[in-house]
Amino acid sequence: MILINGQPENRIDVTDRGLQYGDGLFETIAYRHGQLEFLPDHLSRLIEGCHRLNIDFSTVQQHSLISEIDTVCQQLNADAVIKVMVTRGTGGRGYRYQAEMPTTRIISSHDMPVYPVANVSGITVRICQQRLAINPSLAAIKHLNRLEQVLARNEWQDETIAEGLMLDYQERLIEGTMSNLFLVRNNELFTAELSSSGIAGIMRKQLIKIADELDIPLHITTLTLDDLKSAEEVFVCNSLVGIWPVIRITDLNVDFGHGPLTQKLQNALNSINVIE
Amino acid sequence: MILINGQPENRIDVTDRGLQYGDGLFETIAYRHGQLEFLPDHLSRLIEGCHRLNIDFSTVQQHSLISEIDTVCQQLNADAVIKVMVTRGTGGRGYRYQAEMPTTRIISSHDMPVYPVANVSGITVRICQQRLAINPSLAAIKHLNRLEQVLARNEWQDETIAEGLMLDYQERLIEGTMSNLFLVRNNELFTAELSSSGIAGIMRKQLIKIADELDIPLHITTLTLDDLKSAEEVFVCNSLVGIWPVIRITDLNVDFGHGPLTQKLQNALNSINVIE
Repeated sequence: MILINGQPENRIDVTDRGLQYGDGLFETIAYRHGQLEFLPDHLSRLIEGCHRLNIDFSTVQQHSLISEIDTVCQQLNADAVIKVMVTRGTGGRGYRYQAEMPTTRIISSHDMPVYPVANVSGITVRICQQRLAINPSLAAIKHLNRLEQVLARNEWQDETIAEGLMLDYQERLIEGTMSNLFLVRNNELFTAELSSSGIAGIMRKQLIKIADELDIPLHITTLTLDDLKSAEEVFVCNSLVGIWPVIRITDLNVDFGHGPLTQKLQNALNSINVIE
Repeated sequence: MILINGQPENRIDVTDRGLQYGDGLFETIAYRHGQLEFLPDHLSRLIEGCHRLNIDFSTVQQHSLISEIDTVCQQLNADAVIKVMVTRGTGGRGYRYQAEMPTTRIISSHDMPVYPVANVSGITVRICQQRLAINPSLAAIKHLNRLEQVLARNEWQDETIAEGLMLDYQERLIEGTMSNLFLVRNNELFTAELSSSGIAGIMRKQLIKIADELDIPLHITTLTLDDLKSAEEVFVCNSLVGIWPVIRITDLNVDFGHGPLTQKLQNALNSINVIE
């Protein structure tokens, strides 16, 4: 089912700025056991993204969005992925937008993906050639300009490789094409700071919170390939897969175990109330 | 009139990757006096963009596009802007695409814009705060990830300022939000090289050709704000406005005349056959 501004519809005006310029934002939310996982965090990031892009996403529109998400979920009878898009709305040709344009809200449900790696102890990843551009004004938010990720994800077709890791143009290791990255060394966690590129994932946010609750030291910092090579455990995370332990990095020819700190975080994640 | 894959239609499937990820390209073509200006150059850049993004835009699809552009133009009875978009097509959720997806072709006609500055000797421009990210894999092509331009163009509302100039994150002066930039010094032309950011404009291409024909030395090089300040003439160009002489830069508080080399290029541009 797809709702566009509350109406069952699967097509959008070609003048929508989401299509014309990627002028909008999205969220990918897991719906499991009849619940939307971490919905407030997703909405919060969406609203922050609108703020950053100066998209006028009013409280009234936010309330409509929540109601529309609920309507779509009521049609579901299995676990699913809910994708939410908010664009700046329809408008004329040209980069300039009008003040207070009504946004376009698109809610769609999708089958929960079945990844080939779901039944193994961990995943194999590679290092992508495509780099992330450094762009503080667009960093951390989940906007619709995603060609870097499209190019990176399509560098490989090998089904045994579940994810690709991306560096920025200054050789800093940032994240996966669809996930955030964590390293473990000396019982401490490390993840990239995202002030100039990357997406601040909702699962990353939960894990930062869990690390704090479990008194696991966590460093949000600059990471490099050397940090990756010298890590004791490595994992990636996102809202759909939770935590994926990384057991092999093809391009670096290094292997990791499914380590104790990763398992501890997986257990903690499994035990929390995802609709908090 | 709007044609989508040859059919009169003004809506597009929400699963189109153009909307989902900005996974596509566009062209903005002037239609004047019953002719599409520089159509072969626009098509050439579009095809080059598809090649760079690995969008499978077959010869058959290219022929369909040309025929559809012709159909839209036959409905026109005044000068207009023809916007052409080609996206990777409709597809499932996720950055990965399928091989040989049928592209989506969108052709729309728009009123020729009337710029407030059209009747003055030159335009006032400003320097934008928003920077261009350095990203060689996306440089020069006219792809649909345009948030940088959207943010830059909306930094000002003052109607007396016609354009904003953009630097990259390494302080190099690249282009305008919707135009390319040329400087004149000692009867020589300078424009930014676009290997790491910017759009290689069709009008820029014509002017490079004209400069060659007129034996005007031209440097495609790195430019800075100091080069701008020390220029004798400055102009911006694009397919719709041709050449706009720049007579004032607000943030730098510098003024320029409508100089002889700019006039010479304007005259040369006016005399060429635009459908060559």
